[in-house]
Amino acid sequence: MDDTQTTVAELIRLVDDFVAERQWEPFHDPKNLSMAMAIEAGELMEHFQWLRSDELGLVKEDERKMAQIREELADIAAYLLSFASTMGIDVSSALKHKMKKNALKYPADKFRGRFQ
Amino acid sequence: MDDTQTTVAELIRLVDDFVAERQWEPFHDPKNLSMAMAIEAGELMEHFQWLRSDELGLVKEDERKMAQIREELADIAAYLLSFASTMGIDVSSALKHKMKKNALKYPADKFRGRFQ
Amino acid sequence: MDDTQTTVAELIRLVDDFVAERQWEPFHDPKNLSMAMAIEAGELMEHFQWLRSDELGLVKEDERKMAQIREELADIAAYLLSFASTMGIDVSSALKHKMKKNALKYPADKFRGRFQ
Amino acid sequence: MDDTQTTVAELIRLVDDFVAERQWEPFHDPKNLSMAMAIEAGELMEHFQWLRSDELGLVKEDERKMAQIREELADIAAYLLSFASTMGIDVSSALKHKMKKNALKYPADKFRGRFQ
Repeated sequence: MDDTQTTVAELIRLVDDFVAERQWEPFHDPKNLSMAMAIEAGELMEHFQWLRSDELGLVKEDERKMAQIREELADIAAYLLSFASTMGIDVSSALKHKMKKNALKYPADKFRGRFQ
Repeated sequence: MDDTQTTVAELIRLVDDFVAERQWEPFHDPKNLSMAMAIEAGELMEHFQWLRSDELGLVKEDERKMAQIREELADIAAYLLSFASTMGIDVSSALKHKMKKNALKYPADKFRGRFQ
Repeated sequence: MDDTQTTVAELIRLVDDFVAERQWEPFHDPKNLSMAMAIEAGELMEHFQWLRSDELGLVKEDERKMAQIREELADIAAYLLSFASTMGIDVSSALKHKMKKNALKYPADKFRGRFQ
Repeated sequence: MDDTQTTVAELIRLVDDFVAERQWEPFHDPKNLSMAMAIEAGELMEHFQWLRSDELGLVKEDERKMAQIREELADIAAYLLSFASTMGIDVSSALKHKMKKNALKYPADKFRGRFQ
């Protein structure tokens, strides 16, 4: 069951069940979960921290590194989904809403290939 | 189309299209995207930074704050999905794999209500 | 030589010499160093991540934890000082300048005991 | 009074006085201050986020950007010093201790120009 066949709600249930089975809900408050995302993003950054822009392509060919990177990304995703669940946020709606706002802020014809 | 009806792949396409329309792929390398997640996680933390654990419940009732929080979470999600796309990572598989590993590391009966 | 007898410049020299002896200057660009600070701040947060506000006092009495915390704080300081050196920033002047600006933004009589 | 003439203790006093005048000590617990450092490090990263390694040199010549960068660095320094004060950590001793440990981990002759 890969990304083409898995809904966001199914992933949220996976994380929620894990938390519920351990009765970890008291720890999963929004402050702690936002910290958890930042901490895991930090661990993900570690894999690229000292690489120059032109060296980044090599990472993808290093399967040992990629396995670690997948795990770090999964950690961020898990906390993100737990945060959404705790706060009653629908991730898909929030993302669609934000991307529409971004599209107004950055019209494609004006920002092609640049940010400013 | 909420989380129960949206696949991860649909959200990735949403983000990928946005990036492609602006030809922003050169900026979306894994180093920059990992930084972006950490930066946005920092912005999300700002909403809880000075609140005591016992004050966190109030945030949910503040609709203005919740609108901002949904946007910050969407930002993290957007960069996470773009990262996954750039690196060829299937988020659902990575999350399922990691949750299984976590379940072995934290057996439910031993870690009920505690981490250590 | 403790904080009462050590100038900021002496600490910067300590870090600069360490970097120079290893010819690590090419890695110590401002992008990488800002990432390094965020990563180390993430590692520092890990020590407090799951603690409620009312449990934080105990950390100080745990000497093993305090030793780790001192090291994490030293890591942030090292990268902060290396960043300042690389970018030609005088930390003392920058801090004094910012604290004056903060004092205007948060007049003491208006913000006593609160942020907003 | 620049870095060559300012002790770390003097900077800590500056920050401590600012906090005490506003009675902000209850907010300045180690969890919140570690978050604050991560948040400010995130804001510092924003200035370099989308730049390639070979574009970083230009930042130093942009005085408007440099003024913002100095302020972000000052913010990290302020929270770092407040953290040290709250936790009773001597920054200079902690840094010297950590740099000695780093020197053993990364002998100069073995790690010249590389990390691994």
